[in-house]
Amino acid sequence: MSAVLCLNAGSSSIKFSIYRYSNEPSILVTGAVSGLTADQQYLTFTSYNSGEVLESIKNEKIESPDHDSAFRIFMEHVDSKTGDKRVVSFDDIYVVCHRIVHGGANARPMLITEEVYHELDVLSDLAPLHNQHALDIVHSCIARLKNAKNVAFFDSSFHMTIPRHIYTYPIDLDVQKRHQIRKYGFHGLSYAFIARETSNYLNVESSNLNIIALHLGSGASACAILGGKSVNTSMGLTPLEGLPGATRSGSVDPSLIFHYHTDSSRMSTTLSKDMHLTVAEDILNKKAGWQSITGTTDFGLITKRALEEKDELAKLAFDMFVDRVSMYVGQYWVALKGSPAALVFAGGIGEKGKELRTAVLEKVSCLGFTLDEELNTKATTSSDVIVDVSKKDAKLKTLVIHTDEQLQMAKEVIALQL
Amino acid sequence: MSAVLCLNAGSSSIKFSIYRYSNEPSILVTGAVSGLTADQQYLTFTSYNSGEVLESIKNEKIESPDHDSAFRIFMEHVDSKTGDKRVVSFDDIYVVCHRIVHGGANARPMLITEEVYHELDVLSDLAPLHNQHALDIVHSCIARLKNAKNVAFFDSSFHMTIPRHIYTYPIDLDVQKRHQIRKYGFHGLSYAFIARETSNYLNVESSNLNIIALHLGSGASACAILGGKSVNTSMGLTPLEGLPGATRSGSVDPSLIFHYHTDSSRMSTTLSKDMHLTVAEDILNKKAGWQSITGTTDFGLITKRALEEKDELAKLAFDMFVDRVSMYVGQYWVALKGSPAALVFAGGIGEKGKELRTAVLEKVSCLGFTLDEELNTKATTSSDVIVDVSKKDAKLKTLVIHTDEQLQMAKEVIALQL
Repeated sequence: MSAVLCLNAGSSSIKFSIYRYSNEPSILVTGAVSGLTADQQYLTFTSYNSGEVLESIKNEKIESPDHDSAFRIFMEHVDSKTGDKRVVSFDDIYVVCHRIVHGGANARPMLITEEVYHELDVLSDLAPLHNQHALDIVHSCIARLKNAKNVAFFDSSFHMTIPRHIYTYPIDLDVQKRHQIRKYGFHGLSYAFIARETSNYLNVESSNLNIIALHLGSGASACAILGGKSVNTSMGLTPLEGLPGATRSGSVDPSLIFHYHTDSSRMSTTLSKDMHLTVAEDILNKKAGWQSITGTTDFGLITKRALEEKDELAKLAFDMFVDRVSMYVGQYWVALKGSPAALVFAGGIGEKGKELRTAVLEKVSCLGFTLDEELNTKATTSSDVIVDVSKKDAKLKTLVIHTDEQLQMAKEVIALQL
Repeated sequence: MSAVLCLNAGSSSIKFSIYRYSNEPSILVTGAVSGLTADQQYLTFTSYNSGEVLESIKNEKIESPDHDSAFRIFMEHVDSKTGDKRVVSFDDIYVVCHRIVHGGANARPMLITEEVYHELDVLSDLAPLHNQHALDIVHSCIARLKNAKNVAFFDSSFHMTIPRHIYTYPIDLDVQKRHQIRKYGFHGLSYAFIARETSNYLNVESSNLNIIALHLGSGASACAILGGKSVNTSMGLTPLEGLPGATRSGSVDPSLIFHYHTDSSRMSTTLSKDMHLTVAEDILNKKAGWQSITGTTDFGLITKRALEEKDELAKLAFDMFVDRVSMYVGQYWVALKGSPAALVFAGGIGEKGKELRTAVLEKVSCLGFTLDEELNTKATTSSDVIVDVSKKDAKLKTLVIHTDEQLQMAKEVIALQL
């Protein structure tokens, strides 16, 4: 058998999926290790036989000090199975797909050779907070899975179709060129998945697909998709720009940080000096967002406190997020010249946050989007990839999509026939 | 006679207007000194007799090293007139209105006492680039016009009606409180003028007036006005946030400046240390914007180069500005829940830039706004305060308003009966 292993490293967790290598990749194993920045780590693991769950472990306590050890624990767990429980082995893995956040101006996935690895390492300068964990694992895979190919998928690639006057910042052009400064945009694998699924669901050719997509999770972004291609997105040079996140400020007055405290611009002492990371970037990426307003990163909890317990600060954070999200829907309505066929919610909060969807739809109903409250409630617990939550006969669709970056990578890598 | 002197100090120029103190203030003298950051300064001066031009000087070369000397030159010029040419004297000035950019959380104009002057000085910490010139002149007026009252008008006051979840940034709440960090917004005198004029023109009570207003000049901003009140605006803690300007970046990834060059975060050596201004703020406020793309601050010239001469970088800057402006129209359409009665263009570029209006309208026509190209061309040279450039019988109006911050101050100060 030939299998595809897809790795998706976030800041505090890592997700794994193994698929059978075939035109329609079928899932063999899926899993995750969470809590990598907390005291206790948890392993989740599910194996499948012809799509049916074979074995399932949920939140088993494990000890995993870093991303690389989490990867090792997962792989050993997979390889230790015997008999009927064994669905795949180390040796079956033909290709490993790595989700890398920042890919610079690379519009396509890359086979990782020694040369490319160096290039990826250079890109880390652009995204010190975002690329390092994934790169550590790439390194580990090269060492451990000697017969497998490694392919880097960039979360910025999908946005390389954004026009120059939108990706250019109003700053010195030479500096932009010299330091590779431009709007890149992220969550591209998710948006590619969303575009394909929406195109299928609406029965519209990808080249005619105009939608506004929202990937709302602890990192959140919006994307205007015209003719199946990204023409604008809220994140920028780094994932910091645009919408606020769990610990990320999103767009703020660029002068703000210089008013934060007088030391904001010195180098961060919590991070190694060669990461070129200032205290300021650390504050805006890790000590801001809705956690800085409410004390929790859990948007579900914030929603509950805001709407059921009438907690003032939770309500403030909820309203802030609804406002910022709605403003992007308005912007991208104009970016698409009023042509969108659908508004798509995806990402952890986009998929689970029915109250958030209700609040956003209340704001953007002036554009013609609708929401059926019964379908909206059902969507949160549905296992369907795509749930239409629009009112009956609505011309403009409101959709909830269970996005899957790992599956997107598997499909792309197989299509590439590497 | 009793007169009102209104002073409006920008970074490189200062505008003066003297009105007769009466319910409908009539203009007596208007003038300006420009080129205050260039090698040569120019004085413009017009005096009126019952609304008719009595004497007019255009761009007379003068030597004026700073804002305060420009003010002195203007006042001496006014006071030196004799006989029929004398329309007002120093002693007639009963009240001086000062436009101050940053007013902190002050929602109203303030009579400037010694105590308030200190308070204004403290505000300068929030706006080192913006308040200083005006404060120098306040000081000078207190010393020179001993019998006149001095009143500070804040460009941020109009926005003090913005709701908390919109003016709050997604950063630590204690820090926001301690350092008075919030969205303030600016161009408030202009927006107040626009709201009043639009309300009169549309024959709509101010409390029912919903409009999207654009003040586009070398500093540019957008404002969503609901029930006559600001509910959102593009500028923030400082005028840097939001739209790009002549030398200002507007909103960019908050991480961008740390990629600009490694020295961005040290103190600026071109400015005195006690202004708490970093190199970064200097770059983003003074070395960015469309000048950094095209080499000129003159948007009229950029428009000409872009559209007539097909200059690539001018076209880039023009398209960038059109895109950013259009995005705000889309946002504020949603902020006002699709209720705006008009889209208003004001400010130097908003009033003179017919090509810009054409390009923006092309983008936002999906919202229902229209433009009559003949009226649009006429609007640029019209001396009317308000020009309706919408297509015939359009329900949604597109208006060009010749905004007048000095007249707004005069009207307000007379209404206050200070």
